[in-house]
Parts: sequence; C-alpha cells; structure tokens
Amino acid sequence: MSTQDLTESVVASFAGTSDPRLRELLDSLTRHLHDFVRETGLTGEEWERAVGFLTATGQACTDTRQEFILLSDVLGVSMLVETVHEDAGPGTESTVLGPFHMTESPVRELGADIDLTGSGEPCVVSGRVLSADGTPLPGAVLDVWQANAEGFYDVQQPDVQPPGNGRGLFTADGEGRFWFRTCVPSAYPIPTDGPVGALLRATGRHPYRPAHIHFIASAEGHVPVTTHIFVAGGDYLDSDAVFAVKESLVQDFTATDDPVLAGEFGVATPFRHARFDLVLAPR
Amino acid sequence: MSTQDLTESVVASFAGTSDPRLRELLDSLTRHLHDFVRETGLTGEEWERAVGFLTATGQACTDTRQEFILLSDVLGVSMLVETVHEDAGPGTESTVLGPFHMTESPVRELGADIDLTGSGEPCVVSGRVLSADGTPLPGAVLDVWQANAEGFYDVQQPDVQPPGNGRGLFTADGEGRFWFRTCVPSAYPIPTDGPVGALLRATGRHPYRPAHIHFIASAEGHVPVTTHIFVAGGDYLDSDAVFAVKESLVQDFTATDDPVLAGEFGVATPFRHARFDLVLAPR
Repeated sequence: MSTQDLTESVVASFAGTSDPRLRELLDSLTRHLHDFVRETGLTGEEWERAVGFLTATGQACTDTRQEFILLSDVLGVSMLVETVHEDAGPGTESTVLGPFHMTESPVRELGADIDLTGSGEPCVVSGRVLSADGTPLPGAVLDVWQANAEGFYDVQQPDVQPPGNGRGLFTADGEGRFWFRTCVPSAYPIPTDGPVGALLRATGRHPYRPAHIHFIASAEGHVPVTTHIFVAGGDYLDSDAVFAVKESLVQDFTATDDPVLAGEFGVATPFRHARFDLVLAPR
Repeated sequence: MSTQDLTESVVASFAGTSDPRLRELLDSLTRHLHDFVRETGLTGEEWERAVGFLTATGQACTDTRQEFILLSDVLGVSMLVETVHEDAGPGTESTVLGPFHMTESPVRELGADIDLTGSGEPCVVSGRVLSADGTPLPGAVLDVWQANAEGFYDVQQPDVQPPGNGRGLFTADGEGRFWFRTCVPSAYPIPTDGPVGALLRATGRHPYRPAHIHFIASAEGHVPVTTHIFVAGGDYLDSDAVFAVKESLVQDFTATDDPVLAGEFGVATPFRHARFDLVLAPR
C-alpha cells in the first residue's frame, strides 16, 4: 500500500459521517496531517515526542489554565481563525480571545474601577459602541478583562488577587457610551512553565505580549466582536508572542491632569485616558 | 494583514530555533495547520470544539492509557509514520506500535506460555529471526504482546489479569529460533469510552481491530522492526480501525492434532500453530 493509498483509506473511512461539515473538516485535516508527515519524513521518535508534547499540553489544562489555547495562540492558529472570517468591513477589527476568558466577568456599573487592588497607574477607558453607520447602540454589552499592573490575571494569582479583579461586564448607557476605571496594563509573558513555554525556549522566541485590554462587545442585531486595545508606544507591539496586534487596535493612553475630565470620571489627577469607539457590523 | 502574511510571520518567528530539524518540522506544521484553517474556513466555534477535544484527549491519558496514540492511530497517522520510512526491502513489513506497549514485557524462556490465565484456545507461535539474506540471527530479541481471548490487554484489566499477561521478552536460540505458547488472539474494539470513541461514533466508524499479536524484533547490526501478525480468516482484516493490516503480515493459525509437534512444544492436542519468520534488514 502506498502512503497515498493509506491517506485515501482514512478519508474513505469518514464517508459515513452524518454531519457533512464534520466530514469536510476531517477530510481536510487528514490530508494536511498526512502531507505534513510525508513532506517532513517524520520519524517514529519524532512522532513519540509529539505525542508526549500533546499529552503534556492536555494535562497542563485546569479550570483556570488552557494550555491548548496557548499552543494555538503561539502557532498563530487562533489569530488565523479570527482573521479568515473578517470581512474587512467598517467594524472594529477582531483579535484573539486568548486563554484567560474563563470565568464570568462580574456585572459592574459604568464608571466602576476594575483594578480592585489599586496597584497600578490610574486610567480611564471611555468611548461609545456604534453601529457601522455611526448610530450609537444603547444597551450594548462590553465584557472587559485585563491583567494587573504586574501582568497577571486574577485566575493566575488566586492568593493575591480577588476573583473578578481586572474584569467587568458593562452595559452602555442610552447614548451607547461606556466608561470605567482601571490601571494601565503592562506587557507580560504568557505562562512559560508548561509545554508551550518549553516550545518557546526551544525556538528562541520570547513569551511577551504587548500591554492590552480585552473586549467582547455585543449588541442586538449586530455581530459581536472579540478584540483588544493595545497601549501605543509599549514594548513588543512588533513581536507579540501570539501574533494578535493589528494597527487599528493600538490606542493612545494619554497622560492628563485636566481637572474637569478628572471630575467627570471621579478620579484624581494625573491619570491616563484611553478613548476609542467600538464599531459593530449589523447582522 | 492578509492571512498569508500571518502564516509567514509565524514561520519567521521560528527562525531562531537552534535545532534545524525542529525548525523544519515547525515550519511545515505551521503551513499545513494554517492551510487547513484557510481551506475549511474553520469557525471560532469549531476551533473551540477542537480545543476541547484535544484537551479531553490529553486528560484521558494515564499511566496505562494513551489516548493521543489512539487518535493518531484512527487518523492513520501512526501507520503513515511507519510507512514513510519503509524501504520496501526484503525485511518483514512494519506496522503500528499501538497504545498498549507501555509496560516492560517480562523476560521469559523460549516455550513459555504467555496466556497466564489459560483462558483462550491454546496456540503455539514459532519461527526464526533471519537477516535479509536468510542467515539466522542467534540471540535476536522478541518483545511480544497481545490481548487475551476476550480482547483486553493486562493493563486494561488490572483486577482480572496479572501484570505481564499476554506479554513476553524472548531471546532466540543459537539458530535464531523462537517459540512460545499463548492463546489465539481475538478481534477487539479499541477503547471507546474516551474522546476517540466519540469521534468514531460521530463518523459512523466501527472500533474493531482484527485479531493480532504484536512484535518488536531486534538483533545486533540490524534495523529493529515493530510489527504484528494477523490471524488469517478473521473479521475486520479489510477495515482495521487503525489501518494497520498489510497482506504480508496475515498468517495462518493452523489447527493441528499432530502428536509429534505437540510433544515438541509440550502442549496437548488439538492446538493452533502459527509459524513464520521475522526478517530484519542489516544496518
């Protein structure tokens, strides 16, 4: 039996799959996996190492850690899945979900401070949620999550951070406006104590992500968007470990000591202010 | 950024990999994974299900169960890895290792019975280990493992089977001959209570493997071979769940009541007898 005959036998074995989409995915996956093995002449020893790596990746996953998403992230697969469906329309560009959207963000009032430990440089994030034609979207929902000023998410430091630190579920006001307080995020390394960290070390890659805040914005009759905003001028914008930076998502976090603005948001001066709109495409 | 630019960025990120072979493997893997996502237009929801499937596969692995090897087996990848390196030379053809070669086979004397519970139809397996030119290989080592007559390996039934049941590590005699007693293996389903079983159900595939005995044969100065022999006339020879059947590996397990042969092997009549030679290519 030739190796091509073997591939065809495997593809044929999926002929009885009742879901046509699953069959399509398995056919394509089988062909690409087999092409990879043929093209590289993968050896039994290399295959054993790969099996060991995948097993360790699965076993590193817990309720608060998703090592397979991390693997997908560093291989650019997560970003690609986001990108292949983007229609380059007028909406805010999307980027990866990342591995830390695993707990429900607590519902918070507009203006609330999500930096519950008050550890970082004070910052206000504000803007509007708009439809593609510029119409504000009252009642739009914003799911927000970010690492603290040391670069850790709440779930990574259960002994240091209260649950929900750096997270909030906000509802835009009657004019589609949102605003909340937080600390300026900092660049941080993705977790490197597991198999993905070993992969980065073996390939000479650094594990850093540029400073960012995650958003999922959704509104009735519109396609939700999963995205980040990145802090302009920060490190690693050109070499994000997970390939998630898009130029349109880089935002100024402007230093300000404007007392009127400070009063409006109920913060002390000086503070940093990121102001941007999230634009959703109608369904 | 186009999706092709993204792929090139990921490939470029591996430029600093010190091991050139690892870099080659990651480059090819990245291109094929990305092509798969582009070709199928994989959605975020499908990607999430795939991440969940891979995570569950890793977490189903234990000291006595290797679900990722099983996944590789049912996708034909294990068989392909064996096949791409086969030079179609004069040696015994290889086939998959399978997921049950996970404990050390106990050292046994030639002629020993590896069916420790005496549950199956008595059988003698005998033959010679030869070099490609027909020269016997004294001292060749045979690692043998098989399921019991009910189709389970010792590690799958720790409460029923003693450790090492169905397993033996034999050394060929001064003329390269080997012989041992066992029971006739039966067809059996691969484990279906994990993610791989769910995949088989979703694709309408049966989980059965035709009856077989595993071998790894090795001898000084020769390339070891990992293979099975399959019981001629058995079920599923045309639809092995792991695609491992090669015609040359199907062997007669002849029913015999020859008292001379029975005396030679120290068994009662009637018994079944599989006789074949294992041929190794010189290094």
